[in-house]
Amino acid sequence: MKEQLNDISRNRGILYGVSVGPGDPELMTLKACRVIRESQVIALPNESLQDCVAYQIAVQAVPEIRDKEILCLPMTMTKDQKILDQCHREAAAQIREKLGEGKNVAFLTLGDATIYSTCLYVYERVKAEGEKTEIISGVPSFCAAAARLDRALVSGAEELHILPATYQIEDGIKLDGVKVLMKAGKKVARVKALLTEEGKKVQGVKCCGMPGEKTYASAEEIDEDAGYYSLFIVS
Amino acid sequence: MKEQLNDISRNRGILYGVSVGPGDPELMTLKACRVIRESQVIALPNESLQDCVAYQIAVQAVPEIRDKEILCLPMTMTKDQKILDQCHREAAAQIREKLGEGKNVAFLTLGDATIYSTCLYVYERVKAEGEKTEIISGVPSFCAAAARLDRALVSGAEELHILPATYQIEDGIKLDGVKVLMKAGKKVARVKALLTEEGKKVQGVKCCGMPGEKTYASAEEIDEDAGYYSLFIVS
Repeated sequence: MKEQLNDISRNRGILYGVSVGPGDPELMTLKACRVIRESQVIALPNESLQDCVAYQIAVQAVPEIRDKEILCLPMTMTKDQKILDQCHREAAAQIREKLGEGKNVAFLTLGDATIYSTCLYVYERVKAEGEKTEIISGVPSFCAAAARLDRALVSGAEELHILPATYQIEDGIKLDGVKVLMKAGKKVARVKALLTEEGKKVQGVKCCGMPGEKTYASAEEIDEDAGYYSLFIVS
Repeated sequence: MKEQLNDISRNRGILYGVSVGPGDPELMTLKACRVIRESQVIALPNESLQDCVAYQIAVQAVPEIRDKEILCLPMTMTKDQKILDQCHREAAAQIREKLGEGKNVAFLTLGDATIYSTCLYVYERVKAEGEKTEIISGVPSFCAAAARLDRALVSGAEELHILPATYQIEDGIKLDGVKVLMKAGKKVARVKALLTEEGKKVQGVKCCGMPGEKTYASAEEIDEDAGYYSLFIVS
């Protein structure tokens, strides 16, 4: 019904930030599948379909996505704010062009769109420019990793701390409760050294629910090339 | 193990900890729907179907659940460890009886099963007794709340701290980054007073995706009877 409520006078489309979950296509939500089916344009934060993990997940659950118009909006990974701004501005302009044609755009994102998602920068910009937008929630990677390890993340009075491990984590891992280290990326070797030194209980998953999946039962076991799609739980 | 050999020879069922997500039935995963359909028994942590929010969510996405055998396993809310242990032991025994009949049991839980889920205590016990178990991930309430507020939870270098607000949160809300206060329950008035005093930026959602949904744009707006299904984001 939401589509019918879209601004009929201008007949513009809606931008959806669609979370496709952590990797297993069956962990996509019913809503994500429906919104993808009902969108005319699929936007991806990559150079191509082949490079886009979120697309590779979605296509397994919603094969009809193959017939959709694809908009590749590669997100630069620099920390240079000026270059980032330009990248996001250009992506927003391309999305707005499609919305102006009355098309709904589903911008796919891995995990949940509200947690460290690059697509949210573009989403916020499109929203600020007056377009209708909606976020479709998904399963974050840390929930799937805990399920894969067949354990609770937190219970009772425990606190849960999600730390982006490309940044400084030395203070964060000293907090009480359970710590999740996300996006270790190129810093896996540094994270491994730190966790080994601290002597904490560590479990981890690489490529959870995807090809190449592997679990770790201690800091010592971590592959130093475990990469971007690895996640560590410290307790 | 003798018990495991028995399990195989007797063709025992599997216990699934099934996350039904935060409230909107469309935020259930494809996998949760399939596992519910394929299970012979649906276990609920409540006195009855009518009391069980997780069931009320699931029945909207999987109407076939109405034809399933229902096992009500009311979870006591006391902090008395002896009473808790007995409650969990009895629930585990009832589940094992069904598994022994070769039936798969789907134990429904709100949000994600790995995050402050009462059902996980029973799950761990059943698993420790040698049964086959699997956790089915879901969308946690804080992801849905952020989506409802149409905002990112965290981006870039920000840390995310999930705090169970029935316990002490005075230290937790002073942490850098974004704080999510879950399960404020009967302590909403205390949480409101604390957040108002601290003068932090607060947003909140009550009953996200469910009847009675309401959002809050500041600590001052929070209803003191907002209750168990309310969640606050502090930044």
